[in-house]
Amino acid sequence: MNVEVFLTGHQVGEEDVEGRTVVVIDVLRASSTIITALANGARAVIPVADMDQAGKIAMNLDPSTYLLGGERDGDRIDGYHLGNSPLEYTPDVVQGKTIILNTTNGTRTIWNARSAQHLVIGSFLNADQVVQFIRKAKLDVTIICAGRNNRVALDDTLCAGLILYRLWEGQEPEHVSDAAHIALTQYLHDRDRLAHALRHSNHARWLSAKGYGADVEYCLQLDVCSVLPYYRENRLVVHKQQKPSESAS
Amino acid sequence: MNVEVFLTGHQVGEEDVEGRTVVVIDVLRASSTIITALANGARAVIPVADMDQAGKIAMNLDPSTYLLGGERDGDRIDGYHLGNSPLEYTPDVVQGKTIILNTTNGTRTIWNARSAQHLVIGSFLNADQVVQFIRKAKLDVTIICAGRNNRVALDDTLCAGLILYRLWEGQEPEHVSDAAHIALTQYLHDRDRLAHALRHSNHARWLSAKGYGADVEYCLQLDVCSVLPYYRENRLVVHKQQKPSESAS
Repeated sequence: MNVEVFLTGHQVGEEDVEGRTVVVIDVLRASSTIITALANGARAVIPVADMDQAGKIAMNLDPSTYLLGGERDGDRIDGYHLGNSPLEYTPDVVQGKTIILNTTNGTRTIWNARSAQHLVIGSFLNADQVVQFIRKAKLDVTIICAGRNNRVALDDTLCAGLILYRLWEGQEPEHVSDAAHIALTQYLHDRDRLAHALRHSNHARWLSAKGYGADVEYCLQLDVCSVLPYYRENRLVVHKQQKPSESAS
Repeated sequence: MNVEVFLTGHQVGEEDVEGRTVVVIDVLRASSTIITALANGARAVIPVADMDQAGKIAMNLDPSTYLLGGERDGDRIDGYHLGNSPLEYTPDVVQGKTIILNTTNGTRTIWNARSAQHLVIGSFLNADQVVQFIRKAKLDVTIICAGRNNRVALDDTLCAGLILYRLWEGQEPEHVSDAAHIALTQYLHDRDRLAHALRHSNHARWLSAKGYGADVEYCLQLDVCSVLPYYRENRLVVHKQQKPSESAS
């Protein structure tokens, strides 16, 4: 199984995703928000690349069926129902709704990767689900860290490293890509103080300074959601594992 | 002193370099070739972003004064005098000549960073010169790894990590950028087997498979050149340290 890693998402092309299992990671916060929304009963999340696309999709939906979510500069977009804080996406808010999600880094990266054979969303919240899926799919893998404003983000890199560590059962293969080696090295370096490292990442510090510290604490929890968002027909839905009644919350 | 690191060069903007000391690193091989050419007596190296620019500059020079160097897909460009192998840039070939250098990643990155206050070229060959210069300049620093085809390259990341390690005298400051933390972590992880790690990087393996293994061995030597290429008026020249007679080879 060939494994490719991108430490930022903007340079990914169709040739990097076609025919492969692709995992998009944006720990802070798009991935974590999508996973939480679906875990709490949202019908689907439609990731969009920009405001125009969000508006066009919303215009074609019954207003009672959807919520617009998203951020610019970390804060809720004016006129949207929800921001990009996973803690807003509670069951009473999202149950049965379709979420149109518009974020700076994460949803654009998902949009760019949409021609993958399988496209799933990963974060610390559901890392075990991601690894299980990759193993069952038996395809080559591309892990795409969304990064932050086209720069590498420590939180996404560490999550990629964790997934590689589990996938390889702690043993790095001899010939891996430089980016995979770097992500795994970072995870090995920080694994015994993962929460500390994540809290000190640039994005976490920035979010905490803006008052979103509770989001950071929520997003660094490991394996607490059994939901795997899977991209199908322009939207992310809960992937039905072998026991669908368990995985659909 | 603020230190920013880019693990790939293509996303660097003017705001990331203006008023700062900027170090461009392309270990395999543009940085190493530039350093070697100047150490062996070349008058200057003019880095260019593409073939058109190289041709235009050459047309305005006396043919006896310059050499065209560069690569595409690792090999010498048809019609050029030299490729991108530092071992070609011997004293008898380059003495007194101006080199117009055209490479896939490195010289494009230099071109994009040209509005820096100070722009210097680093590799393992001259890492100590880079650190000395940064300390004397007393400006904020941007270290730009050229990377490879818009992807992170382990060899450049390790060289950035080495420079940070020396600059910080082994002590990582509390609040650094994610990319700086990642580069330093990688260096700490691989420092006791640096040559081994470099030989196993994707770019080194690719070059060796193409027959450029001697270049790889040459480029992983540490602190063997006392030359610091400095960008001034569209070209790289030897930076005159406090004792000019020593630094100009």
